[in-house]
Amino acid sequence: MAKLSGFPELLPADRAVELAVVDALRHVFELHGFANVETRAVEPVETLLRKGEIDKEVYVVRRIHDDASVEVGSRSDALALHFDLTVPFARYVVENAGKLAFPFRRYQVQKVWRGERPQQGRFREFTQADIDIVGDGTLPFHADVEVARVMAEALAAVSRVLGAGPDDPSWFTLQVSNRKVLEGFYRGLGVAEPTAVMQVVDKLDKLPGERILELLAETGLDDDSARACLALAEISTEDTSFVERVRALDVQHPLLDEGLDELATVVAACADVEGVRVTADLRIARGLDYYTGTVFETRMTGQEQLGSVCSGGRYDELASDGRRTYPGVGISLGLSRLLVPLVANGLTSSRPVPSAVLVAVTDEESRAASDALAQRLRRRGIPTEVSSAAQKFGKQIRTAERRGIPYVLFPGEPPSVKDIRTGDQVDVDPDTWTPPAADLTPTVVGLGHHSKETTP
Amino acid sequence: MAKLSGFPELLPADRAVELAVVDALRHVFELHGFANVETRAVEPVETLLRKGEIDKEVYVVRRIHDDASVEVGSRSDALALHFDLTVPFARYVVENAGKLAFPFRRYQVQKVWRGERPQQGRFREFTQADIDIVGDGTLPFHADVEVARVMAEALAAVSRVLGAGPDDPSWFTLQVSNRKVLEGFYRGLGVAEPTAVMQVVDKLDKLPGERILELLAETGLDDDSARACLALAEISTEDTSFVERVRALDVQHPLLDEGLDELATVVAACADVEGVRVTADLRIARGLDYYTGTVFETRMTGQEQLGSVCSGGRYDELASDGRRTYPGVGISLGLSRLLVPLVANGLTSSRPVPSAVLVAVTDEESRAASDALAQRLRRRGIPTEVSSAAQKFGKQIRTAERRGIPYVLFPGEPPSVKDIRTGDQVDVDPDTWTPPAADLTPTVVGLGHHSKETTP
Repeated sequence: MAKLSGFPELLPADRAVELAVVDALRHVFELHGFANVETRAVEPVETLLRKGEIDKEVYVVRRIHDDASVEVGSRSDALALHFDLTVPFARYVVENAGKLAFPFRRYQVQKVWRGERPQQGRFREFTQADIDIVGDGTLPFHADVEVARVMAEALAAVSRVLGAGPDDPSWFTLQVSNRKVLEGFYRGLGVAEPTAVMQVVDKLDKLPGERILELLAETGLDDDSARACLALAEISTEDTSFVERVRALDVQHPLLDEGLDELATVVAACADVEGVRVTADLRIARGLDYYTGTVFETRMTGQEQLGSVCSGGRYDELASDGRRTYPGVGISLGLSRLLVPLVANGLTSSRPVPSAVLVAVTDEESRAASDALAQRLRRRGIPTEVSSAAQKFGKQIRTAERRGIPYVLFPGEPPSVKDIRTGDQVDVDPDTWTPPAADLTPTVVGLGHHSKETTP
Repeated sequence: MAKLSGFPELLPADRAVELAVVDALRHVFELHGFANVETRAVEPVETLLRKGEIDKEVYVVRRIHDDASVEVGSRSDALALHFDLTVPFARYVVENAGKLAFPFRRYQVQKVWRGERPQQGRFREFTQADIDIVGDGTLPFHADVEVARVMAEALAAVSRVLGAGPDDPSWFTLQVSNRKVLEGFYRGLGVAEPTAVMQVVDKLDKLPGERILELLAETGLDDDSARACLALAEISTEDTSFVERVRALDVQHPLLDEGLDELATVVAACADVEGVRVTADLRIARGLDYYTGTVFETRMTGQEQLGSVCSGGRYDELASDGRRTYPGVGISLGLSRLLVPLVANGLTSSRPVPSAVLVAVTDEESRAASDALAQRLRRRGIPTEVSSAAQKFGKQIRTAERRGIPYVLFPGEPPSVKDIRTGDQVDVDPDTWTPPAADLTPTVVGLGHHSKETTP
């Protein structure tokens, strides 16, 4: 049976890593008061197609016995799988506005689908983890700061799960920029079409500076202006010193001042978040999305080929029902995009089962006694399984080994526990003995420091 | 915007209940060594249609720009959304058999889809929580016992989350039966078509005994045999005394003996699970599924109209790749089926946000100080949000009230905390003060005892 290209599935030990990452994200999000929401998998096709450029990638769904002669997608009630969590969340906000307390903070971890043609590295089903803060009519700027801080803490938590030291900031870089800085700067230069310039600058990751200058010239910029735009895009600082560097380019515009103020506030507010690097990066434009201020991207060190694994920004109109407008600021972590390539590179967990202990079975007649021993461990929160076959103990120990289960408990008076890694065996009281905390749940292994081991 | 019928979505406070239930299930499953797995949402249509009767209910998915002139579902590579978690799990087992350690215990909590016509109470998208144990070639009978015990504990944990007292067994009844008992009994009576009889007996919940007798007569049974079959179906005991009652019907068959033995073993092994009722119920036949031994259904007291909320059994052939056969035993909890009607009846949680504390903001200039206070609480695991607007404190307190947040922390030297339910306000050290455990996370409310409050 061939696997379906673009629909990644994880083996149990790898799925344990994903679960641990989701737990870490959830913990951070809930500590900051973000409520969880799940939305249905489908939306009306017309809702999804409102965002023009995605229409090629939508999966339409229909009941198998519906009339096939009607063209798919042409019916006004046709449904399709959502391709992100923002569109369904915007619809959820409008639909439930009367029952939500604004500003509404929510996190959402769900699968999304895109009808990509099968090709290397393109997922057709993948998991995203989103946070957003949404206001009713207005949303103060400090929501941008909050979203940045919360996701910075979440990225730090993820890197700790994956093996980073507690203060090691070298795994993720949250790159913050602000569309007002870029647009204000371009307007200060007299550029008529700031959006065209943004879309060129957005390519700085992929193209050399000289080529960017050529493309900027094609948008109608004179050489000095093009060089100024490139110089702006090349500014990247780990503190608020970017402000001085922008000022040194000697361009004036009120929108630029507002943007610099906002961006400096976000970067300064993230300075004390440990375990992650937060930079002001003026090459980040997110030219193709509908952001109006703060924008985010995120790179993982040693995994730059993944592109941005966590992106978002401020929308002045996340949603609208015609009468009311709901501004929002949010950021979306591409969980599958991040984890699936790492798993392919060896990231996994120390065992494919939650069990920390295997209880041996002497013979089938005494299985109930082994079951009872297991229950005494479980009652104290120790994940335990009972041997499936009353084989010779040597075979049962090898079963534990194959599953990565560190301890085997043998029935007896008193019972005894063998640490199968050291071979040490000691008598224990099954109502008090507890494995060390590090053995209680599977741990993440196999990645080492990602930037060393996974670079080819 | 009209909601889509059959695609339930929960408000944040209600989703918190669902999350708490999933957490409780996961805790029990992992304590017993069950590993989590997620499978992709889609399977080839032909895989899904192999189970004949479901074909009307499948949602086909296709890329919106694929050629619409080819009839949906006719292409050999057509995909559809899975309608349960068993079919994809069986495919996953075969596909990954070389990498799994058997017997393989897994749990899976995911959405499934059925292309039902919209009608009252029919879900088109819903969440299931499944456990299965799968063997490679063989699977010992004690796996049936294990699955029964684990799900019995899980049901007890769910009822505690929903408000049951720690030992109160009155919420869920796990009804166990065994196809060998029924088939052996019918064969002992000389019935030629045991399956036809099972399908009639399966209707005993909906039809009176007299009507069952008529239907049994229509399958060709004489009056005595029909009465014996009905008498068997009416046996229901909370212990192993059902064995005697079956023996008293004076029917002999080796398969009956084997089945009685198995069923008595399961029921006896579940006797000490607290917080749930486990019964031998010989009306449970699950006549339309491919079970070969133990079968399970589950009723919730006071919610009998929901039917069985948790069902399953033993398959001698869960999966096969032509060369190898994988027997399995499993049980599937209908999470949405259970929770959505309870939520409609008032089940919810004490607040729609995780936050236990709202930190007040004196003025926008000192927002950073309030943020810093919040961080000191969060560092100790206390979910905290900061007031979005520096309004008068009275207004900020009302914001907390509206969100169900029990405590407001006011900046100052020293800071003080108000319990907004009692109005008590005390000075606190933000590095040591902790809300009572009961206030730290939202609690489930609104159901009381389900059987009293939700019966009309």
